[in-house]
Amino acid sequence: MKVIGIDLGGTNYAVGLVDETGNILSRIEGKTKVDEGPQAVAKRLSESVKSVMSNTGVSARAIGIGSPGSIDHEKGVVRFSPNFPGWYNFPLAEEIRTHTGLDVFIENDANAYALGEHTFGVARGFDHVICLTLGTGIGGGVITHGFLLRGSVGIGAELGHMNVLPNGPKCGCGSNGCLESLASATAIRKYVEDGYSRHIDSSLFKEKNASQITPKDVFEHAKNGDYFSLSVFNRVVSALSVAIGSLINIFNPQVVVIGGGMANAGDFLLEPVEEMVKDYVLPTMLGTYQIKLSQLGKNAGILGAASIVFERASKR
Amino acid sequence: MKVIGIDLGGTNYAVGLVDETGNILSRIEGKTKVDEGPQAVAKRLSESVKSVMSNTGVSARAIGIGSPGSIDHEKGVVRFSPNFPGWYNFPLAEEIRTHTGLDVFIENDANAYALGEHTFGVARGFDHVICLTLGTGIGGGVITHGFLLRGSVGIGAELGHMNVLPNGPKCGCGSNGCLESLASATAIRKYVEDGYSRHIDSSLFKEKNASQITPKDVFEHAKNGDYFSLSVFNRVVSALSVAIGSLINIFNPQVVVIGGGMANAGDFLLEPVEEMVKDYVLPTMLGTYQIKLSQLGKNAGILGAASIVFERASKR
Repeated sequence: MKVIGIDLGGTNYAVGLVDETGNILSRIEGKTKVDEGPQAVAKRLSESVKSVMSNTGVSARAIGIGSPGSIDHEKGVVRFSPNFPGWYNFPLAEEIRTHTGLDVFIENDANAYALGEHTFGVARGFDHVICLTLGTGIGGGVITHGFLLRGSVGIGAELGHMNVLPNGPKCGCGSNGCLESLASATAIRKYVEDGYSRHIDSSLFKEKNASQITPKDVFEHAKNGDYFSLSVFNRVVSALSVAIGSLINIFNPQVVVIGGGMANAGDFLLEPVEEMVKDYVLPTMLGTYQIKLSQLGKNAGILGAASIVFERASKR
Repeated sequence: MKVIGIDLGGTNYAVGLVDETGNILSRIEGKTKVDEGPQAVAKRLSESVKSVMSNTGVSARAIGIGSPGSIDHEKGVVRFSPNFPGWYNFPLAEEIRTHTGLDVFIENDANAYALGEHTFGVARGFDHVICLTLGTGIGGGVITHGFLLRGSVGIGAELGHMNVLPNGPKCGCGSNGCLESLASATAIRKYVEDGYSRHIDSSLFKEKNASQITPKDVFEHAKNGDYFSLSVFNRVVSALSVAIGSLINIFNPQVVVIGGGMANAGDFLLEPVEEMVKDYVLPTMLGTYQIKLSQLGKNAGILGAASIVFERASKR
């Protein structure tokens, strides 16, 4: 069985033709151009779907879409998304079905990502999985007892908005001290700007302006022993560890997967988190879980979207 | 169908004969006498089971037991429990089956409590339920998509050990800042002892010694405007609100139930928690959940245990 996975973002999208083993047989990327309206976006995605099939001469069985925002997965509707201004209750699945003739299934992108790890990634074979994606924001996906946790109206698993520090920094959601406000790329940028404005002596500020400094820069300078970068890094590690510790006590998972761009920091991030999480888990939980870095890389979005279809097929 | 519910505690136990509507037809309480060993306890419980049946002339279909500690619900084994020193991998279900001839099902007591709320309580009819029991410790039970969340080795839903204040007070589990370390009856007793030792001026200390002051006293003095009692109360409300807010963002539940002895504080506790939780939930969650106080009262344990059997029967 071959399926289409669509990784739909606010700026870019990617469409891939994927087989059961997670090979991507053909792949197209493009600009989403949200400002042209939802119908135009649906048409553009549909044309890319046709292209990846004609490129390979293979017909797909169905299409899976990972989309940001609040998704009605039963109706295939994007209720709304901060990334898609003006989209309200847009029947994306139906539109693309009309253009392509294929069945279309949509999930929130973080949920799709978790399915991707479960089907193709480091969480393969496990029924109790927590996924965190560390990027501009922090997304979450949970598989418990083999099923995706969606919640009563499908907006659960917002792990980036667990509170890990009451009275902590303001979060984009309006609350204070959410994991996202402390450990996302956005949070790191704020720490850096704050350090810069306080004239802190750091090797970071000798190469670039504060606004050009990325989380990757901060992690590299931290590795090289820059005190300020280390302090930023430690705040990220602490917040992540508190959240992961609580999640382990709540879900008793087998695997916690750290994905997203910041997972590229590798063992330099993983090892201190593994160590510090032990401060927050119950003694009985020790030995019951592993924390792993995602291996899906830049294909995580397409594979997650494709796995929406594979998971449905496997549960029939 | 009539079933037996056994509420097994470290000090006391209660056995009840329960019908499908949650009526308790007969009830016996007694001392657990853990020091006499697990076989003696199993025999005592079995005799009480026979008594409640002979009292009413009704035979039960099966027995449900809510037990503290780590339970292997598939094998009916109490792996271990801080409340039962010396019990390791004790096959409680099998022992009681031998004595009574009835099928026996065991769950962790907090999980059983959640099933009780789901079957007979304020969470009846809902598939997405969070339960917190506020007592000496804080127990948790979660029903998500209609199923009890047990986790990979059955020790999940430890909601009392979510971290709500990194570097907060030491918790019995060894960590710092768990919900239990901030909002349990034990936490309140520690706040009171600390206030007493610092010679704080409070109406609390004019009636009783610090060691005799209960959470109920603190709540009553808080209601009457005593500043120290209010400060203790506010710490409990804050910690509860942070935890409940995170749980709503994680599970997108329909109902959050607050039970246990401290739920007797009623609206005085519920209303500020309802208000403060809004500071920690995503705006999209508003309107999707209710927070309710348990109505099961002193029968919560028996009804929870009985509902283990009713839930199994309903899912066959």
